[in-house]
Amino acid sequence: MTITRRHDPDYRGFASDNYAGIHPEVLEAIAVANGGHQISYGEDVYTEHLQEIFRGHFGPRAETFPVFNGTGANVVALDAMSERWGSVIAAASAHINVDECGAPEKIGGLKLLTVATPDGKLTPDLIDTHAWGWGDQHRAQPLVVAITQSTELGTCYTPEEIKAICDHAHQHGMKVFLDGSRLSNAAATLGRPFREFTTDAGVDVLTFGGTKSGLLAGECIVVLNPDAAHGVMYLRKMSMQLASKMRFLSAQFEALLTNDLWHRNASHANAMATRLADAVRTIPGVTITQQVQANAVFAILPPDVTERLQKRFRFYTWNEHTGEVRWMCSFDTTEPDIDAFADAVREEMAQGSSATAEG
Amino acid sequence: MTITRRHDPDYRGFASDNYAGIHPEVLEAIAVANGGHQISYGEDVYTEHLQEIFRGHFGPRAETFPVFNGTGANVVALDAMSERWGSVIAAASAHINVDECGAPEKIGGLKLLTVATPDGKLTPDLIDTHAWGWGDQHRAQPLVVAITQSTELGTCYTPEEIKAICDHAHQHGMKVFLDGSRLSNAAATLGRPFREFTTDAGVDVLTFGGTKSGLLAGECIVVLNPDAAHGVMYLRKMSMQLASKMRFLSAQFEALLTNDLWHRNASHANAMATRLADAVRTIPGVTITQQVQANAVFAILPPDVTERLQKRFRFYTWNEHTGEVRWMCSFDTTEPDIDAFADAVREEMAQGSSATAEG
Amino acid sequence: MTITRRHDPDYRGFASDNYAGIHPEVLEAIAVANGGHQISYGEDVYTEHLQEIFRGHFGPRAETFPVFNGTGANVVALDAMSERWGSVIAAASAHINVDECGAPEKIGGLKLLTVATPDGKLTPDLIDTHAWGWGDQHRAQPLVVAITQSTELGTCYTPEEIKAICDHAHQHGMKVFLDGSRLSNAAATLGRPFREFTTDAGVDVLTFGGTKSGLLAGECIVVLNPDAAHGVMYLRKMSMQLASKMRFLSAQFEALLTNDLWHRNASHANAMATRLADAVRTIPGVTITQQVQANAVFAILPPDVTERLQKRFRFYTWNEHTGEVRWMCSFDTTEPDIDAFADAVREEMAQGSSATAEG
Amino acid sequence: MTITRRHDPDYRGFASDNYAGIHPEVLEAIAVANGGHQISYGEDVYTEHLQEIFRGHFGPRAETFPVFNGTGANVVALDAMSERWGSVIAAASAHINVDECGAPEKIGGLKLLTVATPDGKLTPDLIDTHAWGWGDQHRAQPLVVAITQSTELGTCYTPEEIKAICDHAHQHGMKVFLDGSRLSNAAATLGRPFREFTTDAGVDVLTFGGTKSGLLAGECIVVLNPDAAHGVMYLRKMSMQLASKMRFLSAQFEALLTNDLWHRNASHANAMATRLADAVRTIPGVTITQQVQANAVFAILPPDVTERLQKRFRFYTWNEHTGEVRWMCSFDTTEPDIDAFADAVREEMAQGSSATAEG
Repeated sequence: MTITRRHDPDYRGFASDNYAGIHPEVLEAIAVANGGHQISYGEDVYTEHLQEIFRGHFGPRAETFPVFNGTGANVVALDAMSERWGSVIAAASAHINVDECGAPEKIGGLKLLTVATPDGKLTPDLIDTHAWGWGDQHRAQPLVVAITQSTELGTCYTPEEIKAICDHAHQHGMKVFLDGSRLSNAAATLGRPFREFTTDAGVDVLTFGGTKSGLLAGECIVVLNPDAAHGVMYLRKMSMQLASKMRFLSAQFEALLTNDLWHRNASHANAMATRLADAVRTIPGVTITQQVQANAVFAILPPDVTERLQKRFRFYTWNEHTGEVRWMCSFDTTEPDIDAFADAVREEMAQGSSATAEG
Repeated sequence: MTITRRHDPDYRGFASDNYAGIHPEVLEAIAVANGGHQISYGEDVYTEHLQEIFRGHFGPRAETFPVFNGTGANVVALDAMSERWGSVIAAASAHINVDECGAPEKIGGLKLLTVATPDGKLTPDLIDTHAWGWGDQHRAQPLVVAITQSTELGTCYTPEEIKAICDHAHQHGMKVFLDGSRLSNAAATLGRPFREFTTDAGVDVLTFGGTKSGLLAGECIVVLNPDAAHGVMYLRKMSMQLASKMRFLSAQFEALLTNDLWHRNASHANAMATRLADAVRTIPGVTITQQVQANAVFAILPPDVTERLQKRFRFYTWNEHTGEVRWMCSFDTTEPDIDAFADAVREEMAQGSSATAEG
Repeated sequence: MTITRRHDPDYRGFASDNYAGIHPEVLEAIAVANGGHQISYGEDVYTEHLQEIFRGHFGPRAETFPVFNGTGANVVALDAMSERWGSVIAAASAHINVDECGAPEKIGGLKLLTVATPDGKLTPDLIDTHAWGWGDQHRAQPLVVAITQSTELGTCYTPEEIKAICDHAHQHGMKVFLDGSRLSNAAATLGRPFREFTTDAGVDVLTFGGTKSGLLAGECIVVLNPDAAHGVMYLRKMSMQLASKMRFLSAQFEALLTNDLWHRNASHANAMATRLADAVRTIPGVTITQQVQANAVFAILPPDVTERLQKRFRFYTWNEHTGEVRWMCSFDTTEPDIDAFADAVREEMAQGSSATAEG
Repeated sequence: MTITRRHDPDYRGFASDNYAGIHPEVLEAIAVANGGHQISYGEDVYTEHLQEIFRGHFGPRAETFPVFNGTGANVVALDAMSERWGSVIAAASAHINVDECGAPEKIGGLKLLTVATPDGKLTPDLIDTHAWGWGDQHRAQPLVVAITQSTELGTCYTPEEIKAICDHAHQHGMKVFLDGSRLSNAAATLGRPFREFTTDAGVDVLTFGGTKSGLLAGECIVVLNPDAAHGVMYLRKMSMQLASKMRFLSAQFEALLTNDLWHRNASHANAMATRLADAVRTIPGVTITQQVQANAVFAILPPDVTERLQKRFRFYTWNEHTGEVRWMCSFDTTEPDIDAFADAVREEMAQGSSATAEG
C-alpha cells in the first residue's frame, strides 16, 4: 500500500456533489488508459475517440475540448465566444458571477451583466434588461447570453425555454453559452437526449460537467456551432487548462458516456434529492423553496435547527438572511443516507426552535 | 471493463516525460483516497497532511498549494510574488517564455525580460542585463528572477549557483522563483535534499512538479518565504487552478513523496538519459550539445538521419536551424528501450547522410 | 489664422457638461505655461506646484497625479487601492459600471459588485448587500467601496453621509474611493471646503474632475491616505494615462483652483440647473424625478414631447422605459439659455401629447 | 492673468522633443475650436473633418481615431490588430518594449517577441527569428510585425525597406503595424508623401504622432487597411483613450496638417540635428554612433565630459555601459541653441577627460 487511508470511506453528507469521489468505473478507465506512452496535450487516441463520442450526443459539428475544471471551462468558452469589448448577460445566481473569484472579469476580461431571477433561470424579458446599447462605444457590448442547466438553484429549463432564449439572443446578434456542469442531471430529469435541449435548441457552446458526475476531475468545452467560437485551442493553453496527459481526462469522459454511466449517476442523484424533498416537505416548519428538478433541495429551516443539524451532517447555509439551506445529493448518496438525514431533520424540528431567521 | 484499451501499453518513445502515464503507486494512492465524502477545494485530510510532508522536505515555513498543471503553477506563483507593474527576469529558453502561449503576459499581466544563455542557466551577470531601472515609471519594474531546476536544457544548477543568484537578486530587492517541474531530477543528480538548493539557498517560491514524475496530473506551488507571496489562495482560484476534489491531487503527491518514489523515478530517468548519452556519444557524427545532468539528452544529428529515426521512435527536433534534437527519458523508460534506440541511432548514422543541417 | 472655425460658438444645449469648451482663464493658463522646455512626464514646475495647491484643499498628506480623463483616473485609482483578487462595491448607476465600456473589469481586472439605488447614493445598508465573504477563496474580495460626488443622478451626499460610509467601510477593512468628476459642483452646493466631505470624512482616494469644469482635458487622482494606494506612478504609466507634456494638464488645474474659478464655474452651473428645475417644475405633466443638488435636472416628460424638444435642443433620454430625460448645465450655460429652453418645454407641453411613456 | 509663469520660456535643452511646448499655430487652433457646445466623444465637426484630412494623406480607405498619447495609440492599435492569443514581433529597442512600463503586455495582453537590431530597424531576416510556430498551441501566435518610423535610434526606413517587411509579413499571414510617433520627421527626411512609405508600402495600421510635433497632446490611430483592425472604437474607450472634448485633439491635428506645419516643424528639427551632428562630428573624441536621419543624434563621449555637459544642458545618457548619449532636437530648437551646445561640447572635450567609458 502506498499511502495510508486517512478518511472514512463510508461518510457522506449533503454539502456538495463535489464532496464525493470517483466512480469505480471511471477509476477503472483511468487504469485502462494507463501504461506506455501517448502523445501529450491532446493528440492521444482517447481524446481522438472522445470527439466521436460527443458527436454522437451533440451532433456531427460538435468539437470537444477537455479541460481541468468548471471555472476554466466557463472562462475559456466565454472568451472564445466574445470579443475583448464584450459583456455577458447572466443570472445573478450564476456560478460565473458568484463562485469563481471574479475569474471571468479578471482572467477573461469579460464584463458580466447580471439580473436577479426567482429560480435561477433567465427569460427573454430578463435578458432584455441588459440587451441593448449595441454600437454605443461607452457600453461593453452584450455579445453572449449565459445560462446554466440544471441551474444553481436545482431547477431545469425545458427545451422550449432554452429555444426561446436562443432565438431571442440570436435575433439580437448574441450567442448562447450553456454552463452544463450538471447537464447530465438535467437530461435525466427531462428524459430527453442532450442534443434536444442544446444543439437543437440553438445553444452555441456549452461546457459538459464531469467532476460532479463522478470524475476525479474534468470538464469539456463543447462547441456546437463552430462559427460561434474562435481560438479555443490557444485560449485553453494560455488559460492554463491544457492537460499534458490528456488521455486520462478523455478516458474518464469515455467511461462516463459508456453504458450510460452519466445517466445512472445523474438519475440516481436526482432521485435521492426527490426522496429527500418528499421526506421533509411534510415536516411542519420546513419550507421547500425551489422545485426539485435535479440533485439539489433548497429549504428554509429555523436557524437553530440548521445549526444543530450541521453538527450531525455537513451542508451549507445558502442565505444567512432567510435561513435558506442547500442539500446536495450525489451519485453515491444512498437511500439510507437520505432516510437518516430526513429523520434527523424531523428530530431537530421536533425538538423545537427558539429563534427565527432574520427578516 | 468500462472502456476499451486503445493504445499499446508497451510502446515508449523519447519525445517527452509527459508522454508517460501514471506510476502504479500513484494510481493506487488515488484509489486509497477514494470513497466517501471529503470537503472539497482543499479542506480535505489528504491536503492537510500534505502540508506536513512538504514541510519535512522544505522546512517549517513552507506552504503548499496543489494545482493542476505547470503553467498554472508558474503563473499563479509569479503573480503572487509580483505587483501589477512588475517584470520577471528569465532565461530565453524558460518554459514561461517559450511554451506557455503567453500565459504569463496574457493571464498574469507580467512582462518577461529574457536573456539568452548557453545552457539554460542564469547567472548574476546575465541577470544584470535586465536588473536596472527601479523607480523609473517607464519601466516595468524587475521584481522577480525566475530560474528552472533542472533546466529546459537538461542541466542543473549547483546549490552554490542558486545561492549566488538568490543573494544577488535579494540585494537588489528582487525575489527568486524556481520552476521545479523537474525538481526531483535535479535533487537526484545533486544527491542533496531539496531544501539545500532551494530554501537554504534563498529561493522564495517554487513549483514542485508531479506530472512529469509519474502523476496523472498535478503540480504544487510551495511558498518557502511567506513574506514573498501574497494572495495565493485567491489567485489560484481566479486563475482556474483550484481543484474541487483536491484530495486526489494531494494523495498523488503523498505517494510521490512516500518511500522515496520521487527519487526512484527521477534517478531512474536520469540514469536512462546518461546511458543513452554514453551509448551515442561515441558514434561518429553525433554531437552531444549539453551536459546530461537530468533526464534529457540534447544532440546534433544530420537532418536526414533524424528524419529516418523519427519514423522509428518519437522525439522532437529542438532547433530546425542547427539540427539539434531532444531525447527525454521518463520513469518508465527501460534499459532495453535505451539500447534499442541507441542501436537505431547507430544504424541510421551508419547508413549515411546525404545532407547537413543548415548553417 | 491656422484653421477655420467650423462650429457655432454661440450654440449651447443641455446634453452634457462635456459638450462645453474651455474656460478662457484655463486657455490663458495653457498659454502661460507654453514656451521653452520643461521636463516631461511630470517633473515640470507646474506639476510640482500643483502638489501644494491640492494640499491646500485636501490636507498635507494629499498626493496628486494628473491624468487625461475620468475613466483613466477611476481605473488607475481603483487598481492602486485594490489587489488582483479584489472587488469594488458601487451603485449600479455609477459611471464605472455604466459608461466605461467595461474598463474597470477589462483593464483594471476588477469585479464590480453593484447595487440599485433610488438616488445614486450608497448607504451602509446598501453596501452590506455585497460586503461579506472575506476569506472565502471563491469570492472576489470586497476591498473598496466606490461612491460618486455629486452623483450621476445630480444628487449630493452630505459630509455626514460620506463619513458614515467611510466608517462602515473601514470597520470592515475596506477602503473608500470617491469619483469626483463633479466634485466642485458638490462643494458649491454644500458650501463646504473640499476636505470637510473628503479627507476629514475618511475618503481614502478620490478623483478630481477638470474636464467638466472647463478644462480642455484633465482629471487628477488625489491620494488622501497614502497607505491606501500603491504604485500609482507605475499604474498611471502602464494604464496609458501619463502625459508627456504634463505641464499643460497641471497649468489647467492651477487655473481652475486659482481665484476660485472652480467655485464660480460650479456654482453657476448649479444655479442654472436650479433655475431650470424651478421653471419647469410647475408645468403640468412635467415631473422632476431627482433632487437638484448639482448641475443636472432629471425629469419625466411624454415621449413625443421629448422628441419634439430634442429637435430644438440637444439632450439625452436617460431611460427609454420611463421617459425620463436628463438636462445638464455647464459653466457656460446662460440665463437666457435656460429661459429659452424652459419656454420651449412649456410650448411643447402645451401643444399636447398623444402618447405616454411605456409602463 | 490667470496663473503665474513659473518657468523660463527661453530655456531649451536636448533631452527630448516632448520637453518642448505647443506650437503657436496649434494653440491658436485650440482657441478657434473653443466656444459653444460640440457633441462630445468624437461626433464633433472637427473630428469629422479630420477624417478627410487624413484620407488626403493616407488614401481613401484611411480611418482615423484621435487618442491622448503614444502608449495608448500603440496598445489600442495592436489590440485591434491581434487576437487574445497573439504575439508581436518588434525590435528590442522599440518604444513598446522599452518605454511603456509593460502596457502592451499588461493592458493589451500581448506577448512581445523582440530582436536586437544594430540601428533600430527590423528586416525580413530579423523577423524570421520569431516568425514561426503558427498552429502550435503552446506558442503565442505571431500575428503582427511592429516597426517604428523614424526609429528610436533616429534612423529611417526607406519605402523599399518597409515594403519588403510588409510583403514578408503578409506572406506569413501577419499584419504590419507602424509606430509613427515621429512619422513627420521620416517624411521630411525621405522627401516623400506619407502614403508612399505607409499605405502604398503595405502598412496595415499606424499611429501618427502629434505631441512630439508641437501639439499639447494627441496621437492618431490611422487604420489604413480596414480589414486589419477590429473594434478600435470600443478598444479606444475601454483603454481609457477616448477624449470627451475630442474637438480639441482634432483641431490640433488639423493645425498640424494645415499649411504644412508638420513639415515645417519636422524638417526644422531634422535640420537642427544634422547641424549638431556636423558641428560635433569633427571634435576629436566624439563618435556619432547612428546615421542622423531624423531629429536625434547619438554619440559616444567620455563619461566625465558628459557629466560636465549635463550640468549646462539637459540631455540623456542612452547607455551607461558605452557612454552613448542622445541629443534630441525639436520644432523650437534654434540655430544659436545648436551652436552654443556644439561650442560647449568642444569646450568640455578640450578641457580633457580623466576617464573613459566602461568597456
